[in-house]
Amino acid sequence: MSIKKKITELNRLSVEKFKETEKIPLIVVLDNVRSLHNVGSVFRTADAFLVEGVYLCGITSVPPNAEIHKSALGAEFSVDWRYFEDACEAVSDLKCAGYTVFAVEQVENSIKLPDLQLEKGRKYAVVLGNEVKGVQQAVVDMCDASVEIPQFGTKHSLNVSIAGGVVIWEVFRKITAI
Amino acid sequence: MSIKKKITELNRLSVEKFKETEKIPLIVVLDNVRSLHNVGSVFRTADAFLVEGVYLCGITSVPPNAEIHKSALGAEFSVDWRYFEDACEAVSDLKCAGYTVFAVEQVENSIKLPDLQLEKGRKYAVVLGNEVKGVQQAVVDMCDASVEIPQFGTKHSLNVSIAGGVVIWEVFRKITAI
Repeated sequence: MSIKKKITELNRLSVEKFKETEKIPLIVVLDNVRSLHNVGSVFRTADAFLVEGVYLCGITSVPPNAEIHKSALGAEFSVDWRYFEDACEAVSDLKCAGYTVFAVEQVENSIKLPDLQLEKGRKYAVVLGNEVKGVQQAVVDMCDASVEIPQFGTKHSLNVSIAGGVVIWEVFRKITAI
Repeated sequence: MSIKKKITELNRLSVEKFKETEKIPLIVVLDNVRSLHNVGSVFRTADAFLVEGVYLCGITSVPPNAEIHKSALGAEFSVDWRYFEDACEAVSDLKCAGYTVFAVEQVENSIKLPDLQLEKGRKYAVVLGNEVKGVQQAVVDMCDASVEIPQFGTKHSLNVSIAGGVVIWEVFRKITAI
């Protein structure tokens, strides 16, 4: 039988336990993400896959915020976050701290997501951009490389929070399998 | 240099070309999904990964709908869809048509998403459930198996559209790699 697990059977962490738990070495950077729904959704995904932190940059709103809470459902309190006025500063900071930083963008010489190779012991960051403009070109230029989610339909891109979900999942899967 | 591609360089399909293009053998079933944003977002993801169709069931709204359009951005016109009064009917229909159907749910004997094995030449469907209640137990019971996205944080589940994004991506990646 396939009985659905009760919430108590899911063995989810308390916020206190989450803070103490070892995270995957991944920071998610949001470069001018306008939608509060997208910000909240990224927090919720970051919580599920034990992401180290979310960097909110530029016009991206920060917690506490009622609209972020509606989609984060409290994950904005479990996942660590910082604010930077410009994503360029966030990327500089990450590179100085030894992170390999990938823009999630559709560029000429991008790494296709299935081909992304990660190494044990290294730290990574991924930058998600604005709903319309994507990641700023200046930020793309600062990153070590761009990672592209192959897409084959009629629309030019995925929703930001879905792109974040797919990339965070793929990094999580690869890092935990090393 | 990593210059971002212009929209014209992305070589996206027109709706007419999309209709003619070979899809991946995957149907996404939405069982009582309440949020129009989630419905629209699933259409947009289905468009990107050439999903065969979306089955909208129960209280799930159908196109044309202004709120669905806000997140689907037109993908509700490229991706084929059908409406069923109950997801049980949709799953029956799919099983009769030879599809292997997975509920995306957290159940005792679930297949963990990274362990999901797909076979060349077979057709698949995945069922995503209501934002609060998940997939109906009766529908879970009708499915061939449940697929679970491993989650390790404080919240009991991912947002429906993110869970859909992760599962559709994983099925797309696996089917196109066979």
